[in-house]
Amino acid sequence: MTTSYSTIQSGPEVITAQVMYDFSAEPGNNELTVKEGETVTVLNQNVGGGWIEAQNSRGESGLVPEDYLQVSVCDDDDDGEWDEEWDDARSTGGYGETTGEEEGEATGHVGPVWLYPQSPLDCVVADPKKGSKMYGLKSYIEYQVTPNTTNRPVNHRYKHFDWLYERLLEKFGSAIPIPSLPDKQVTGRFEEEFIKMRMERLQGWMCRMCRHPVVSNSDVFQLFLTYRDEKEWKTGKRRAEKDECVGPMVFSLIDPEAPELDIIEVEQKCELFSRFTKEMDDGVKDLLNVGNIHWKRCTGPLRKEYQKIGKAFQNLSSVFNTSGYTGEATLTDALTAAGKTYEEISQIVAEQPRKDLHFLMETNNEYKGLLGCFPDTIGVHKAAIEKVREGDKMVAAGKINTQDKGTMAKRISIMCYSLQAEMNHFHSNRIYDYNRVMQLYLEEQIRFYETVRGGQEREGSMKR
Amino acid sequence: MTTSYSTIQSGPEVITAQVMYDFSAEPGNNELTVKEGETVTVLNQNVGGGWIEAQNSRGESGLVPEDYLQVSVCDDDDDGEWDEEWDDARSTGGYGETTGEEEGEATGHVGPVWLYPQSPLDCVVADPKKGSKMYGLKSYIEYQVTPNTTNRPVNHRYKHFDWLYERLLEKFGSAIPIPSLPDKQVTGRFEEEFIKMRMERLQGWMCRMCRHPVVSNSDVFQLFLTYRDEKEWKTGKRRAEKDECVGPMVFSLIDPEAPELDIIEVEQKCELFSRFTKEMDDGVKDLLNVGNIHWKRCTGPLRKEYQKIGKAFQNLSSVFNTSGYTGEATLTDALTAAGKTYEEISQIVAEQPRKDLHFLMETNNEYKGLLGCFPDTIGVHKAAIEKVREGDKMVAAGKINTQDKGTMAKRISIMCYSLQAEMNHFHSNRIYDYNRVMQLYLEEQIRFYETVRGGQEREGSMKR
Repeated sequence: MTTSYSTIQSGPEVITAQVMYDFSAEPGNNELTVKEGETVTVLNQNVGGGWIEAQNSRGESGLVPEDYLQVSVCDDDDDGEWDEEWDDARSTGGYGETTGEEEGEATGHVGPVWLYPQSPLDCVVADPKKGSKMYGLKSYIEYQVTPNTTNRPVNHRYKHFDWLYERLLEKFGSAIPIPSLPDKQVTGRFEEEFIKMRMERLQGWMCRMCRHPVVSNSDVFQLFLTYRDEKEWKTGKRRAEKDECVGPMVFSLIDPEAPELDIIEVEQKCELFSRFTKEMDDGVKDLLNVGNIHWKRCTGPLRKEYQKIGKAFQNLSSVFNTSGYTGEATLTDALTAAGKTYEEISQIVAEQPRKDLHFLMETNNEYKGLLGCFPDTIGVHKAAIEKVREGDKMVAAGKINTQDKGTMAKRISIMCYSLQAEMNHFHSNRIYDYNRVMQLYLEEQIRFYETVRGGQEREGSMKR
Repeated sequence: MTTSYSTIQSGPEVITAQVMYDFSAEPGNNELTVKEGETVTVLNQNVGGGWIEAQNSRGESGLVPEDYLQVSVCDDDDDGEWDEEWDDARSTGGYGETTGEEEGEATGHVGPVWLYPQSPLDCVVADPKKGSKMYGLKSYIEYQVTPNTTNRPVNHRYKHFDWLYERLLEKFGSAIPIPSLPDKQVTGRFEEEFIKMRMERLQGWMCRMCRHPVVSNSDVFQLFLTYRDEKEWKTGKRRAEKDECVGPMVFSLIDPEAPELDIIEVEQKCELFSRFTKEMDDGVKDLLNVGNIHWKRCTGPLRKEYQKIGKAFQNLSSVFNTSGYTGEATLTDALTAAGKTYEEISQIVAEQPRKDLHFLMETNNEYKGLLGCFPDTIGVHKAAIEKVREGDKMVAAGKINTQDKGTMAKRISIMCYSLQAEMNHFHSNRIYDYNRVMQLYLEEQIRFYETVRGGQEREGSMKR
C-alpha cells in the first residue's frame, strides 16, 4: 500500500470545450447530443476510441466524438487535479512501499495520503444491450465498459458488477470503504428509464472505484476492466475468489518503512473523523429527505396547481368571450396568454427536479452509501488501537515480550497510515464532488428562474 | 332613471405620477408610504383635502399628499374614462328622463346605457378609530369617509354601512345588483389586521357604489356621504326608512319617453346575460378556489420546504467546516450562501401571495358577491316578461282592455331598458377591473421571479 505525505492544493480546474459541429446522440449508447457553439465541461479526455466524455450545462453527460470538440487549453496537467506532489511520486503499481512523515502543523499539511498514479484510471459504462440465455428463456442486460488505459470495451452484466463488489469488499473492506452497488431491482428490469438510471449509477460507482489508487490498481479490478476473452475472465475469477490476502490481511502487504505514529494523536484524529462522517451522514440524509419531498411536490401538487391556475384564467377568458360586449379582445387575449404561461410554468416546474435536483440527489445518494461503510472501517481501527493498549498490560503481566509488542505496534501504525490516507482521500474527493454538484445545481436554478421570468415577461409585455 | 344610447370605447387610460419626495404613511390612516423617484398609479385625484389616492407597483394603495406627486399629463379628461358620448350627455341628477334607441347592428353598439355624470363620484374610507359607548362598556370602530364632492369627512361605523346596504337593497334590488358588504366578523374585531382588511373591503364596496350613476345619485347614498350633523343624519335616516318608492316601484319613476323594445329580442339578450353571469360565477369561484389553495401552499408547506432545503445546505456547510481538512473554504462559503438564498426564497415565496394574489382574490371576491345578486335581478325581469305574455291572453279573454295592456307593455319596456343599461354597466366595469387586476398581477409575478433569480444569480456568481 502506498501513501505519500503531501500538501493538498486547491480544488481541480474544470476543463471546458467548444462544440464545433452538431452531434446527435444514438439513444442508449451513453452519447451526448450537442449543438454547434455550445460550451461543455470535459469530464474525461482519456476515454479513447475517438471519444471525449463531456457534460452539458443541464448536467447531462455522455460521449461526444473528439473531432467535434475544441478543448480549451488548461494550465494544469492531469495530475494537477489531485496533488502537486504526485508529479514527483511514482506509482509502484500496487502494494509495496509506504513513505510517511509525522503530520505537519502548518496549514495545508494533511498527513499521509495514498500515492496516486500519474494518469488516473477511468472508464465509461455505455451501450446497454439485451442478451438472452437458455434459448431466450432468460434475458439480461449487458453493459459495455471501456477503460481509458486499453480503450478496449469489455461486456459485463449487473451480476458481474455485483461479483466485483463482493471481491472488493472482502479484500479491502477492513481498510477502505467500498460503497454498495446501486439497488438490485427485480421488476421492470427492461424498462428503458430503469436501465438508463442503473447505467448512470453503475458509471458513478465505477468512477469512484477507478479514482481510488489502491482499488483501481488491484488485480481483480484490472481483470474486470481488461480481460481479453472468456477464458481469461474465468481463470481470473477463480484466482480472485481464492485470494487469501483479504480482510485485515491486507495490512500485512504494507511496507513497514515508516516511523511509528503517535497512538494518542491518531486516536484523536480517528475520533474526529468518526464524528465527522456520522454528522455528514445525518446532513446528507436530511438533504436527501427534503430533496425527495420537494421533488414530489414539484412533479405532483405544484404542477397540478399551476395547471389549474392556468385553466382558471383560460376558462375566464372563454366566458368573457361569450359576453357579446365589445372592446375586450385585449383583456381576453391577456387572460388566455396568462393561462398558457401558467401551463408552461407548470411544465417547467415539473421538469426542473430532473435538471437540478437529480444530480444533487445522485451525488448525495452515493455519499450516503459511502458514509454507511465508515463505521465498520473505523471499527476495525478502534479494535486495533484497543489491542495496542492491551499489549502494554500483557507486557507488564509478562504474557508477551517487548519484541511481540513492538511488532504489534508497528502493524497498528501501518493501519493508522492507511486510515489517514483514506480519510484524506475521502475529503479531497468530497470537496471535488460537492464543488461540482453545487456549481451545476446553482447554474440550473438560475436558468430555471430565468426561463419562468422570461415567459412571464413576454406575457406582461402583451398586457402593456 | 337615465339611460343613454352610446358606443363604448376602449378601456380607461391609467394615469401615473412621479413621487417627488419621500412620504411615510401614518399607520391605519389609509395613507401610502412612497419613495422619491417611484412611479405610482393615480386612482383618484378628486379626494380633496390636498390628498391623491394612489397605488404603488406592489398593488398597495392609499393617500399621498398631492404636493408630493407630479401627475403625468393625460390626454383624456375624466369622462373619457367611460364613454365619449358622456361629454354630450348631462346628468339630470336622478330618475327622470330616459332616452333610448333600437340596438344598432354595427360593432361597438351595445344598446342602452345609464347616463353617467361628468365627474364620477368617489370617496375615500380611511383613519379607523376606536370609539366607545355606555361608559366604555361597548366599543366600536369608526371609519372616516370623505367624498370627492364636498371633501368633508363624515364618520361611520360598520353598522351604518350595513344600514345603507339594507336601504339600497330594498330600493334598487329589483333593478340593480347590490353586492353584500364584507363579512361581519364578531371575534377579534379590534385586531389591526382585521380592521385594515375590513377598511379595504368597505373602500372597495363604496367605490363600486359610487361608480353606479343611479345608486350614487340617490338621496340615501348622498345622505350617507354628506350629512352635516347628527340631526341631519337622523332626519335623513327616518326619511329613507319611510321611502315608499322601493322594489319594483322604482321602475315607475322612469320616464316613458322611449320607443318600446322588441320583447323577443330582449328576452334573448336577457337569457344570454343570465348564462354569462352563471358561467362567470363558476369561473370566478374556480379561480378563487385554486388561488386559495395556492396561497396556503405558498405560505405553508412551500415556505417550510425552502426553509428546510436552506437549513440542510447550511447544516452540511457547518459539518464540512469541522473536517479539519484544508482548502474547502470556497465550498463551505458556497453551501452557506446557497442555504441563505433558500431561506430568502422561502420568505419571498411566503410573502408573494400578499403582493400579487391578494388583489386578484379581492377583485374576484367582489365579483363573486356581485354575480350572486344577478339571479334575483334577472328573475324580476323574467317574471315581468311572463306578465306581458299573460297580458296578451287576458286581452283575448276580455279580462283587461288593450289600453291596460299597452301600459303594461310600456312598463316592461322600461324595465328592459334598465336591465340592458345595467348589463352594459356590469360589462364595462368588469373589463376595467379585470384589465387593471391582470396588469398588476402579471407585473408582480415578473418582479417575483426577478427577485428570486437575482438572489440565485448573486449566489451562482460566488460559486464561479
